[in-house]
Amino acid sequence: MLSNRQIKLIQSLKQKKFRSEHQLFIAEGEKIAAEVLSSNTFKIEAIYAVKAWIDKNELILQQFRNVVEVSNNELNKISQLTTVNQVLLLLNCKIQENLVPSKWTIVIDTLQDPGNLGTIIRVADWFGINEIILSKNSVDLFNPKVIQSTMGSFNRVSVKYEDLSIWLLSQTREIYGAVLGGTNLYKTIFPEYGILVLGNESKGISSELLKLISNHVEIPQEGGAESLNVSIACSIFSNEIMRQNFQR
Amino acid sequence: MLSNRQIKLIQSLKQKKFRSEHQLFIAEGEKIAAEVLSSNTFKIEAIYAVKAWIDKNELILQQFRNVVEVSNNELNKISQLTTVNQVLLLLNCKIQENLVPSKWTIVIDTLQDPGNLGTIIRVADWFGINEIILSKNSVDLFNPKVIQSTMGSFNRVSVKYEDLSIWLLSQTREIYGAVLGGTNLYKTIFPEYGILVLGNESKGISSELLKLISNHVEIPQEGGAESLNVSIACSIFSNEIMRQNFQR
Repeated sequence: MLSNRQIKLIQSLKQKKFRSEHQLFIAEGEKIAAEVLSSNTFKIEAIYAVKAWIDKNELILQQFRNVVEVSNNELNKISQLTTVNQVLLLLNCKIQENLVPSKWTIVIDTLQDPGNLGTIIRVADWFGINEIILSKNSVDLFNPKVIQSTMGSFNRVSVKYEDLSIWLLSQTREIYGAVLGGTNLYKTIFPEYGILVLGNESKGISSELLKLISNHVEIPQEGGAESLNVSIACSIFSNEIMRQNFQR
Repeated sequence: MLSNRQIKLIQSLKQKKFRSEHQLFIAEGEKIAAEVLSSNTFKIEAIYAVKAWIDKNELILQQFRNVVEVSNNELNKISQLTTVNQVLLLLNCKIQENLVPSKWTIVIDTLQDPGNLGTIIRVADWFGINEIILSKNSVDLFNPKVIQSTMGSFNRVSVKYEDLSIWLLSQTREIYGAVLGGTNLYKTIFPEYGILVLGNESKGISSELLKLISNHVEIPQEGGAESLNVSIACSIFSNEIMRQNFQR
């Protein structure tokens, strides 16, 4: 059984203001729950699940105190999904384990769409990049749409919010930016360690940051489209960096 | 001024049933309208726009008879967007101009998400691939979410619905499929002409089709993510095919 107070608290977490206030966020669904349970990145404050899911996960749940059995109807009330799944986790925003940073870091200026951030986290995780630095005005990692679209990868990729100019100036690795009109991606040789900078969905990288990027690189275009989505550009660059590392 | 009958008709076009019945679909926003006006792929049946947009496009609009000035409020009623834009086009579903097919064709089995189809059309357009073949149970091209997320590329890419087994058997080009466990993408040499097959968002390519694909290829994975989104996989494969063509 859920109290009205609990329902209200969980519902409030769709807003950044309340996530910050309570330092809590939610993650939903069987696949994502399995990933959270098997990793140690975020502390689980509570698990709300239907009986079938609790029965199936009986063994692993023995280590958690706060497991609350809920009805489908109750789950529906606290879920942010259109089609509710069997389980909703209440997680602490504080990262428990610090990852050893990967050779490459992805930096994004003013990323706005939650689906894009989720997809980029998933792409980074696929290619073994575990550090993403976002400008402070970017979409919040703990937005439910971000968390869900990572498909669980938020447990393996660190996302930090920084003043990008200051952060980039503090780096010793070479900096590459996805910039229309830059040199051809297919003629670019990437080093083993580096930083990849991507820009806002419609405005690209701000002119202030462009000055700090020594290598402007573009994905060659053959057809008529004017641009590519930022998560698509991120995946093509990450793949190219990975391919060169593989063939090194 | 819009009549109630017009408003009802346009609103009904968010459903496939009514798009098929009337053979009409909608496309919205300044950028997409500019692309449609400058191409000849789909016949424009009507243009609904606010005064500011009509004034700005006065010259090009002289060739169109059915331009209807609407208020913001009226546009709001017929729009499918959360933030309405200045113009909505009513287009005929019939393709007027047949494109010369590109060297590569993208084939997708049971694609379900409208955003994914829109993104894939945009990616194909970027890389100069202008033919996409979908299984008959895939998402409808004329779904407003598909059209909007192509960012105008639907004017330059032909999308057809076929029985994929029959279609693949009729082809002479070599067939490549994105399949987990296939050979390494970075060790694959693609021919100049070919067919790329991608699968459903959660189930991949059906076993029936897998038998018809001579080359199973996978994107090497370095980190922890179990899979990549189908539009991401499409962009990485398209980029790799393009890169090899560029360096040929």
